[in-house]
Amino acid sequence: MPARAHDESGSVGVVDTRHHDLSAPLELEAGASLPEVRIAYETYGTLAPDRGNVVLVCHALSGDAHAAGWSADADAPTALDGFKADDRGVKPRSGLGWWDGMIGPGKAFDTDRYFVVSTNLIGGCRGSTGPSSTSPATGRPYGGDFPVVTVADMVRAQRRFLQEALGIERLLAVAGGSLGGMQGLEWAVTHPEAVRGVVGIATTAALGAQGVALNAVARNAIMSDPDWQGGHFYGTGRLPRAGIAVARQLGHITYLSGPAMEEKFGRRLQEREDYSYTVDGADFEVESYLRHQGRAFADRFDANTYLTISRALTYFDLARAHGEGSLERAVAKLRAAVLLVSFSSDWLYPPRDAYRLEAALRAGGRDVEHHELDTTYGHDSFLLEEARQTPMVRDFLARIAAAPVPAPDPAAARAGGS
Amino acid sequence: MPARAHDESGSVGVVDTRHHDLSAPLELEAGASLPEVRIAYETYGTLAPDRGNVVLVCHALSGDAHAAGWSADADAPTALDGFKADDRGVKPRSGLGWWDGMIGPGKAFDTDRYFVVSTNLIGGCRGSTGPSSTSPATGRPYGGDFPVVTVADMVRAQRRFLQEALGIERLLAVAGGSLGGMQGLEWAVTHPEAVRGVVGIATTAALGAQGVALNAVARNAIMSDPDWQGGHFYGTGRLPRAGIAVARQLGHITYLSGPAMEEKFGRRLQEREDYSYTVDGADFEVESYLRHQGRAFADRFDANTYLTISRALTYFDLARAHGEGSLERAVAKLRAAVLLVSFSSDWLYPPRDAYRLEAALRAGGRDVEHHELDTTYGHDSFLLEEARQTPMVRDFLARIAAAPVPAPDPAAARAGGS
Repeated sequence: MPARAHDESGSVGVVDTRHHDLSAPLELEAGASLPEVRIAYETYGTLAPDRGNVVLVCHALSGDAHAAGWSADADAPTALDGFKADDRGVKPRSGLGWWDGMIGPGKAFDTDRYFVVSTNLIGGCRGSTGPSSTSPATGRPYGGDFPVVTVADMVRAQRRFLQEALGIERLLAVAGGSLGGMQGLEWAVTHPEAVRGVVGIATTAALGAQGVALNAVARNAIMSDPDWQGGHFYGTGRLPRAGIAVARQLGHITYLSGPAMEEKFGRRLQEREDYSYTVDGADFEVESYLRHQGRAFADRFDANTYLTISRALTYFDLARAHGEGSLERAVAKLRAAVLLVSFSSDWLYPPRDAYRLEAALRAGGRDVEHHELDTTYGHDSFLLEEARQTPMVRDFLARIAAAPVPAPDPAAARAGGS
Repeated sequence: MPARAHDESGSVGVVDTRHHDLSAPLELEAGASLPEVRIAYETYGTLAPDRGNVVLVCHALSGDAHAAGWSADADAPTALDGFKADDRGVKPRSGLGWWDGMIGPGKAFDTDRYFVVSTNLIGGCRGSTGPSSTSPATGRPYGGDFPVVTVADMVRAQRRFLQEALGIERLLAVAGGSLGGMQGLEWAVTHPEAVRGVVGIATTAALGAQGVALNAVARNAIMSDPDWQGGHFYGTGRLPRAGIAVARQLGHITYLSGPAMEEKFGRRLQEREDYSYTVDGADFEVESYLRHQGRAFADRFDANTYLTISRALTYFDLARAHGEGSLERAVAKLRAAVLLVSFSSDWLYPPRDAYRLEAALRAGGRDVEHHELDTTYGHDSFLLEEARQTPMVRDFLARIAAAPVPAPDPAAARAGGS
């Protein structure tokens, strides 16, 4: 077996994604229920005897359970694709976890100290139950019949999974960027007794109109692809590749800032001296890059999962769900300490949203720290600016780990501290 | 005949779009030529005896020759659609010109003083020769065989038209926003002796990487619609409505700023109290708005024209075409005075591009004034912030009209001043 072509210092090493089937159906916010729910997950580090060192890491739209280390399948696609992969010389199919820069021995989420758990969201397409899973009622993939799930549903599934599979009732922290941060907020508001800290990076309590709009256009691109077939494309030999490619191309633009794109691509042509003078040629490097990213994503990602997750993050609205429209009232339910990190160049989850959330938390006397980092990478900063986030996350986790635990952990008590 | 339901004070009144066929084929930058070229145009105001008061107004991606006044067809679609129309209570099918707020008696482009000419661009779909025109070679619409045209070609066609149809050799000013401003710059650089002033609003000497990318995604949305059929969809009964709708939805987001969208839409739901909990429902006002705009645009605009014009504005690069890569060298060829107006919230044609252009003009000792206006409307500010642009444009035009003319106008000399 050839030697691995990567450096494993600071790495959690090679990891397997495991699976757990929930013991009972999962009721959903919209009224439906999922009779069978499988959760794909990975863990890094060691669970402390008192179970007080658990950090749940939550992924964003296109992520998966494989957050750190190298996949046992060395040829697995990494969710750390596109600009993120290019920028650090990571091959798109390298099996590297999407937040490997943040999770590992000595890293921000230090696996020498914390037991880090990562799951693939329900609605996903990377091992957890989602639209491409088989519906027990029909014996065929759900497709367009997969119910809409919300961030609250994702959190409910994670909680059930942690209890059943790992015997974990309480979390030191819930952490994530973008949609991952939304899950952290939802966790802390709905289970105030179970969450001591939230690490919310490049996130918001509710997407603004521009974010709602950009997500709507991406979904419309998928749904207007005739190969989508109302979501029932599995087994037809026709996949909505064109639609999801357009959605992903748009996504890539929104994850980066204008200046970062300018620096990376400018107006350079792609392996040509002159324009092709065609409407369909990918003359510019950035045009070629987007086409490539669209195709690569269509190869690895399920269109119905894209729709499902995009809808969930669009629906997420902490104030609406928990405060009758008042963000202050919603976050008053939360007891966790909150670390917010926002990025000056992030226009998809702009710093003004984090300031709004910070103000609401402060108004209720909550323990909140917010750092706006001056970056050029836009929303992708949460995946790229690891060095600058690391001390903030490390200090925050150390601080909340050292603080007295508000109440005993029933699961730890039952397990006798083992 | 019922009374018109509009106020004609300050209006040029009801206007007809006229047409002129160029007397000879038009050679194109990419090497092809158009054997027959029709130009749709309108004029407002009166040509001065010395022909020294001509202002050519150039439209942007989705505009047309009908820039001011009311169309003789009162039910004609206005190019002033979407947010622009809503914002001022203009009906989408009202026949109002797209820059009516700027052109008319006493307005910025004062038709009591200036003779304003507006044409539909070649490649267009509103009366000038474009992809939906009949190819003389085949007797069928060009469709996907329509040649790529550039901003230089658009300018060459405008010049031929002005000479042939109106006997105009020299222009007091060329004015426009966005792509319209690009045409002004191209005019001034390629015909320095013929242009005394350029009014470039929300424009650039070359689109940056983000703008190139956004245009590429819009074109990809159209071209990946199977109903596009490589551009040969005319007469097939299948139109790429879905693709052009997605392109337009994306366009609308880029024409506005995040804060302006937030103010206009927020997260308000569209005629409902609760979420539909579907992936395809247009639950939010902004989702409903975008769908409506997409459909309305698909009704009135040709998909191949969209591709053609989008490609032209992507290719536009003043430094590349005229300065061997140096913007300073390119604008050194220009003799016109230049008025630049940019908008703080415009992220599609950001102020930094206008500052870059201003610096290049100043470096060559050119007469340039640049005003960055603090606005919230984003790129659409050029259509919406008329009151604040008016004094700048009015003063600029008065100043250049009062300045001595560098050299005699041959056409005026030939025509004996009539």
